[in-house]
Amino acid sequence: MNALTLADARSIIAAAEARAEEIGQPMNIAVVDAGGNLISHVRMDGAWLGSIDISINKAFTSRAFDIQTKDLGDNSQPGNQFYGIHASNHGRIMIFAGGVPLSRDGQVVGAIGVSGGSGEQDQTVAEAGAGAL
Amino acid sequence: MNALTLADARSIIAAAEARAEEIGQPMNIAVVDAGGNLISHVRMDGAWLGSIDISINKAFTSRAFDIQTKDLGDNSQPGNQFYGIHASNHGRIMIFAGGVPLSRDGQVVGAIGVSGGSGEQDQTVAEAGAGAL
Amino acid sequence: MNALTLADARSIIAAAEARAEEIGQPMNIAVVDAGGNLISHVRMDGAWLGSIDISINKAFTSRAFDIQTKDLGDNSQPGNQFYGIHASNHGRIMIFAGGVPLSRDGQVVGAIGVSGGSGEQDQTVAEAGAGAL
Amino acid sequence: MNALTLADARSIIAAAEARAEEIGQPMNIAVVDAGGNLISHVRMDGAWLGSIDISINKAFTSRAFDIQTKDLGDNSQPGNQFYGIHASNHGRIMIFAGGVPLSRDGQVVGAIGVSGGSGEQDQTVAEAGAGAL
Repeated sequence: MNALTLADARSIIAAAEARAEEIGQPMNIAVVDAGGNLISHVRMDGAWLGSIDISINKAFTSRAFDIQTKDLGDNSQPGNQFYGIHASNHGRIMIFAGGVPLSRDGQVVGAIGVSGGSGEQDQTVAEAGAGAL
Repeated sequence: MNALTLADARSIIAAAEARAEEIGQPMNIAVVDAGGNLISHVRMDGAWLGSIDISINKAFTSRAFDIQTKDLGDNSQPGNQFYGIHASNHGRIMIFAGGVPLSRDGQVVGAIGVSGGSGEQDQTVAEAGAGAL
Repeated sequence: MNALTLADARSIIAAAEARAEEIGQPMNIAVVDAGGNLISHVRMDGAWLGSIDISINKAFTSRAFDIQTKDLGDNSQPGNQFYGIHASNHGRIMIFAGGVPLSRDGQVVGAIGVSGGSGEQDQTVAEAGAGAL
Repeated sequence: MNALTLADARSIIAAAEARAEEIGQPMNIAVVDAGGNLISHVRMDGAWLGSIDISINKAFTSRAFDIQTKDLGDNSQPGNQFYGIHASNHGRIMIFAGGVPLSRDGQVVGAIGVSGGSGEQDQTVAEAGAGAL
């Protein structure tokens, strides 16, 4: 059975938190399952309030298209093939770094979304989380 | 300083989870801070998908009015003084059991919201969580 | 593997359509997967426009709480334990007949939602669809 | 009478599906009528979850302005005459390839929307569907 459990989500979040502490930037971290539905979210002390929604929606976006949000972002700039995609899905599509699919046995089983710092910071924390699976 | 930390939220959620396991009903559990903003959410394995949103919004509602959602519910029945309040706040007001304010030193510092079972089950799990503070 | 396929959804919809024709009432029929996400929708010729959204959301609701929407409706009347639940989940919770969970091997794998007639008509068509799995 | 029927929508979707299989890319495919209202939607097995909404809204957009969404997209880039149109219609305006009007006897009777691959892939599948009318 490949479904992501709450225990999985907690391991992923713990690894992301450790990386966030390492770089000294408090983050919002969210994990969704294969259906794009939230399993768990944490806001580290001092992390931005506006990033609660963004972290959850980066995770949603990453699973919705089985892609890292930074790569979707590249395709969604003016003039590129997905420009305008951020207007879809009732405001849930995030097109900047910090969302990374979670795979197990070659299958996407969910995604992690991180928000609270620069794009580069969000990305490294999301990758640390994804690496824990 | 009275502000609720992520560590506080985790203790509260752990106590709520323990109670949910005791009664054998998987739950969604959410904790918000004094600003009504989410600190943490967990969906226990097997808990209802529709309760993700409800748990977060029960917590929001409970802090928004510094009241248990079951008591707000009594006041929000047809003919009663707050009937119609569920149409406010963009669909975030929940008027049934499972939301409980979190107090420290006589001050409301946040709230817990629980959803995933009957009203009675949600309430007992929320109370267990609130009791951990 | 228990995941509902498009072929499954089509069999379910075909059975529902046959029942709708039998009772002479054109319907909107929708099937969602285990994550609550739409697999397929059809609007039979002459069916209500307002029922497009309702059919999809009855299916969502039924999976969101693993319950028939008519039973959720009983619990959501004024004075009952879930009164006010229809304000949650961004307007996606439907609390009247026509949503039925889809089960395979004792596991809920999705849901069907039907809208276009009386509550009784919606229910019988939804049950016919669910019976095809 | 020119109105698009469910049978029409099914032929259109079948042709689109055949093309999607030919190019090896699972798609979401939606058909709307002259009123811009959904007649039918299918998500092929393995197609992106985020494309459910996009396919339906590409079809809506295409009928809403009687234009291919890729042509609307050209006009909606920064600096161009319709830049900002994606903020209208409550997030339903899609400005990238994959939406194509459906015409019969020189009259627009609806539209098809396709989402699930690159802009080029979405476009060829939508054209295949439109060609079936």
